[in-house]
Amino acid sequence: MTRAGASGAITVPPGLAGVIVTNTEIGDVRGDEGFYHYRGHSAVELARHHGFEEVAHLLIVGHLPDAAELAAFRARLAGHRALPSAVAELLPAICRTTSDSLQILRSALSLWGGATGQRPLFDAGEDERLATALAAVAVTPTILAAAHRLGRGLEPIAPDPSLGHAEDYLRMVSGERPASQDVRAIETYLVSTMDHGFNASTFTARVVASTGADLAACLVAAIGSFSGPKHGGAPSRALEALEEIGTPDRADAWVRDRITKGELIMGFGHPVYRTRDPRSEMLRDIARGYDDPLVDFATQVEDTFERVLAELKPGRQLHANVEFYAGVVMRLAGLAPDLFTPTFCVARVVGWVANVLEQSHDPKLIRPSARYVGQLAARAG
Amino acid sequence: MTRAGASGAITVPPGLAGVIVTNTEIGDVRGDEGFYHYRGHSAVELARHHGFEEVAHLLIVGHLPDAAELAAFRARLAGHRALPSAVAELLPAICRTTSDSLQILRSALSLWGGATGQRPLFDAGEDERLATALAAVAVTPTILAAAHRLGRGLEPIAPDPSLGHAEDYLRMVSGERPASQDVRAIETYLVSTMDHGFNASTFTARVVASTGADLAACLVAAIGSFSGPKHGGAPSRALEALEEIGTPDRADAWVRDRITKGELIMGFGHPVYRTRDPRSEMLRDIARGYDDPLVDFATQVEDTFERVLAELKPGRQLHANVEFYAGVVMRLAGLAPDLFTPTFCVARVVGWVANVLEQSHDPKLIRPSARYVGQLAARAG
Repeated sequence: MTRAGASGAITVPPGLAGVIVTNTEIGDVRGDEGFYHYRGHSAVELARHHGFEEVAHLLIVGHLPDAAELAAFRARLAGHRALPSAVAELLPAICRTTSDSLQILRSALSLWGGATGQRPLFDAGEDERLATALAAVAVTPTILAAAHRLGRGLEPIAPDPSLGHAEDYLRMVSGERPASQDVRAIETYLVSTMDHGFNASTFTARVVASTGADLAACLVAAIGSFSGPKHGGAPSRALEALEEIGTPDRADAWVRDRITKGELIMGFGHPVYRTRDPRSEMLRDIARGYDDPLVDFATQVEDTFERVLAELKPGRQLHANVEFYAGVVMRLAGLAPDLFTPTFCVARVVGWVANVLEQSHDPKLIRPSARYVGQLAARAG
Repeated sequence: MTRAGASGAITVPPGLAGVIVTNTEIGDVRGDEGFYHYRGHSAVELARHHGFEEVAHLLIVGHLPDAAELAAFRARLAGHRALPSAVAELLPAICRTTSDSLQILRSALSLWGGATGQRPLFDAGEDERLATALAAVAVTPTILAAAHRLGRGLEPIAPDPSLGHAEDYLRMVSGERPASQDVRAIETYLVSTMDHGFNASTFTARVVASTGADLAACLVAAIGSFSGPKHGGAPSRALEALEEIGTPDRADAWVRDRITKGELIMGFGHPVYRTRDPRSEMLRDIARGYDDPLVDFATQVEDTFERVLAELKPGRQLHANVEFYAGVVMRLAGLAPDLFTPTFCVARVVGWVANVLEQSHDPKLIRPSARYVGQLAARAG
């Protein structure tokens, strides 16, 4: 699999697959077991029993907070939630250039880095790095909620630091105080998607962090990778499939047709999990807390998929993934499909900053090599 | 050096040093020989004898253009030079949030990606990818020259598509038609720094490109890494050292003091070259074309450094690097030190887009692994 050539170059699988680029204490995914964790704690159990701020503290600071730590952490995050005025003033103009929420977030966080005078991580001390990381987590929902409203011709709503992170995000989106069931549903989704092993955007954030650049540079790069079609994870597509099926009686024929043709079915299958996706089971339980026909329909489609797959491709391990019930939960909690990707970002920025902070302790630049395989012209001089 | 563990994980040197992440036909650096090339052509010879557009065509399209190809390529680049109005209108506000040229370029190119409706590279065909790449190369000097002027309270100057890329950059900076010697000096510098092996920002651009994201996402990420203090390459620092020395008679004592204390001397030494940096020699020749005392002074400091180093640390291979004479050349051509890094970007964006285009042909995501080394809590559920 690997060899050192005459030049000392080390050949590894394409795309660095399986190559260990770093040690981490942040989390891991064990695909064969259907298990993933944050700092050793089952992420699904954390999502079921803990709030956004508690688990963000676990990932970013390193441990689950006690009551006093949690209160201080909540206050600190809430205190960073308002956008710097320079960014708030430019946001309407940014939203006129594009309706793509990831491009808006990319530009807004880039500006935010400049407007807040962020120094390179290389030059910043621990306290400054942590403060910047918390500010990034805090402003991300503010930016995305404001962009959503601006895109619909509505005024952004200022944050309310007396509210929790998830609740205030929903309020800044809708303009109304959300129901507690919706807050809890979204908070569960957010906690369950804060981090998920060493995915492509997380790796990108760490590559930039390894150069010692400022935190905004790392996040802007991560958002770029996150926007890539090969990164995966678009919860709106699974919901679109449900809408295409329309009614339960059409599910069998629709699924059978797709499987027979060998087509992908959005919301099913995962590159890592060989079992049921632990996130989909937990989110299905959350969805079942709503008395809504969409839940029964989604469950029927899942059951139909499993039954038809077992009939047509016996032994094939394909199950509902996180996208499938994430879309259902977000819809039930009142979020429109164009908010699914932004909401994913509200969660994942926690994992990104935790990884950037961890990377900033490693003095080594991440910088592999390439092998020149082109032609050589005759050398002159 | 490498082993596959029980989990199939592959252990490699820290920072992926020496690990081959891709094949490339773009270029290579041979540190032991003091030689680097673009698609097999000596980069220094290209810089001495060819213009910006010719070598950009070589790197981006794949071969040195004939006369007709060159004319078409020049016209195409020049046609993209004007900023989209949405970006031009926001630039003054961006420049009020920060004076850091790399943060400004990062935000402006992020907005440019959105404002031009860039599609993911994954979805774009070859022609669309190439057109976007050329547009990125074309607008970069326009953004940086405008930002420079806005930072000084001056109005930006619109591009003149009848001029070449290097000449128009200097004109958009100063507002005056530059002397031909200055154009040629800067063009030589630009060509010599378009690409330089598989550096950290180039790798970052390719990581994001591997997700299939849009070109702006790749460039914004590359700029993030480029801004990292560990990426290296700040031509203004070497000139600052010359200014600190002040006069030739003080060079010996200044150099001796630094070497004795084991301090870094900016402008000397390189992580790859064990010989003289081929770029420094070429740029010294360009500098000598100016009849200016700064050139004699710089040469005296270089000679003093070599003499004192040989006396105090015999056998140590440390020589003037690209930074040392790059700063001198840019100063002689009329660029203020705060334009040195922007000018480096005007060059390097060519290498970034060439690498992004090459990466976009590879279907494989660049996505290594991490090894979880933290604690495991007792598993519940």
